[in-house]
Amino acid sequence: MISITILGTGNVAQNLFEAFLLAVGVEVLQVVGKATDRMDFFKNRTTLASYEEELAPTDIYIIAVTDAAISEVSEKIATSGLVVHTSGAVALSVLQTHKRQGVFYPLQTFTKERILDFSNIPLCIEATNENDLQLLHRLGTTISSNVTPIASDKRKALHVSAVFVNNFTNYMYTIGEDLCKQNQLDFSLLKPLIKETAEKLDFLDPIEAQTGPARRGDLQTLHTHLSQLKSKKHREIYTLLSNSIKASYPIENDKS
Amino acid sequence: MISITILGTGNVAQNLFEAFLLAVGVEVLQVVGKATDRMDFFKNRTTLASYEEELAPTDIYIIAVTDAAISEVSEKIATSGLVVHTSGAVALSVLQTHKRQGVFYPLQTFTKERILDFSNIPLCIEATNENDLQLLHRLGTTISSNVTPIASDKRKALHVSAVFVNNFTNYMYTIGEDLCKQNQLDFSLLKPLIKETAEKLDFLDPIEAQTGPARRGDLQTLHTHLSQLKSKKHREIYTLLSNSIKASYPIENDKS
Repeated sequence: MISITILGTGNVAQNLFEAFLLAVGVEVLQVVGKATDRMDFFKNRTTLASYEEELAPTDIYIIAVTDAAISEVSEKIATSGLVVHTSGAVALSVLQTHKRQGVFYPLQTFTKERILDFSNIPLCIEATNENDLQLLHRLGTTISSNVTPIASDKRKALHVSAVFVNNFTNYMYTIGEDLCKQNQLDFSLLKPLIKETAEKLDFLDPIEAQTGPARRGDLQTLHTHLSQLKSKKHREIYTLLSNSIKASYPIENDKS
Repeated sequence: MISITILGTGNVAQNLFEAFLLAVGVEVLQVVGKATDRMDFFKNRTTLASYEEELAPTDIYIIAVTDAAISEVSEKIATSGLVVHTSGAVALSVLQTHKRQGVFYPLQTFTKERILDFSNIPLCIEATNENDLQLLHRLGTTISSNVTPIASDKRKALHVSAVFVNNFTNYMYTIGEDLCKQNQLDFSLLKPLIKETAEKLDFLDPIEAQTGPARRGDLQTLHTHLSQLKSKKHREIYTLLSNSIKASYPIENDKS
C-alpha cells in the first residue's frame, strides 16, 4: 500500500483525488489546503488539514497547486518522504529543501467540475533517485496505463508543445466563435468539425492531415478570406499562419 | 424516392455516396467522374459515367469536386433538374447556367479512405427557390439530423471560421509534433490533451475554457517558453497568439 498526501484543492488536486480513491494499493491519507469552499469537495472522504498543521507521515506528498505557489507549499512540508509536484513547467529544483524530490505531471487540461478518466492520461514522472522513480511508476500505474519517465528539460519542451496544441488551439476555437457571433451563426455548427480534426490524428500525422487554401497555395481564397475578416487581429493571425503553412508545403497544382 | 447523380470521385463524393447508399428514400442512380483509380471505389455499386456522356435524368445533381473545377463541371450538365455544389467557399452563382441552383455543404473535414458517420454532420443548404430548398432539406434529413438553411454570405463566414478551427488548429498540432521531434519526444503523449481540448467544448465556451500563461498574464513563463523555441517561425506565432490572448483577458492576479 502506498500512502499519499495531496496538497492543493484545485482542478488537478480534485482529479488526482478521485482517481486515487478508486485505485487499488493507494490510500489518500490526507488532503491539505486553505480553508476555502474548495475544501468541501474532499469533506468526509479523507482527513483534511491546513498548511499550518503538522502533517501525518505518508510515503508521498503530491503538491498540486499553481506553479507560483509550489515553492512556498514545499517549504511548509517537514518530512523525509518523497515530495513531488505536478507541473509541466517548473524545475525539479524548486523542491530543493527536500532530500527526495520528484515530479508527477499529468499531461492533460483539467477543468472545474469535470472529473476525467485517468486511464489514458500520460503521467510524466521524474525523481532524483532510482528507487523513488520506481515508486512513482508504481503509483502512476495504479491509475494510468501511460506512465513515462521524462527528464526536466524534455518535460519543459512537452509543456511548450502543450501550449500550442491546447492553449493556441482553444484560441482558434475562440476566434471561430467570434466569427460565428459576428455573422449570427450558431458556433455549435463547427463542433463536429473540431472533433474530427482532433480524432483524425489517430490515423494521420498532422503534417499529412493539413488541408485548406494555404496548404493548396490557393491565393484567391486567401485574399477573399482576408477581405471578410473585420478584426485587424484576426487578419494578422490569418496572414501569419497562412504564410507559415504555405512555406511548409511545396507549391502544388493539385487544388484538391 | 429522390434520385441523385454524384459528380466527382474524391473524399466528399465518396463520403456522400456511402451515406446515401444507406439512406432510406434516396437512390444514387449515377456517379460521374474521370477515368481514374478513384472510380474503382464506386464500381459495381451504381452506374458509372464519364463527363463526356449524356447523363441519365435524376432529381438532383450533386457536384462534389474541388472549388476550382465546379464551374467547368456545372457547364457540362444538360438538365432542367436541380444542380447543387458542396463547397463552403463558392457562391451559388457559379451554377448560373442552370435554372435551379443550390448548395449542399457538409461542414466537415473529409479524409482519404475514411468514411464518416453523417448523422451529426451539419448540412448547410441553400437554393434559389423555396421548393428546391425543401427538396434539399428532405434529401439532407435522410442522412443527417442537422440540416440548416444558410445563405451564401453566412456560408462564406462559416467557411472562414472553419479555416481557423480546422486548418489552423491542425497547424498547431503540426508545430506540437515538430517540437516533440526536436526533443525526441513521442507526439502521441499529446493526443489525450488534444482530444480533451476539443471535447471540453461540449460544456464550456472556448472563451471560458482558455488557460495557459498568456491567459494568466504570466510573463515569466512566456519568456521561458520563447527562449526554448529554436525556430523563428514558432517564436513569431507564439508571440502573436500570446499577445492576442493576453489582450482578450483582463489582467488577473490569480495564477490558477
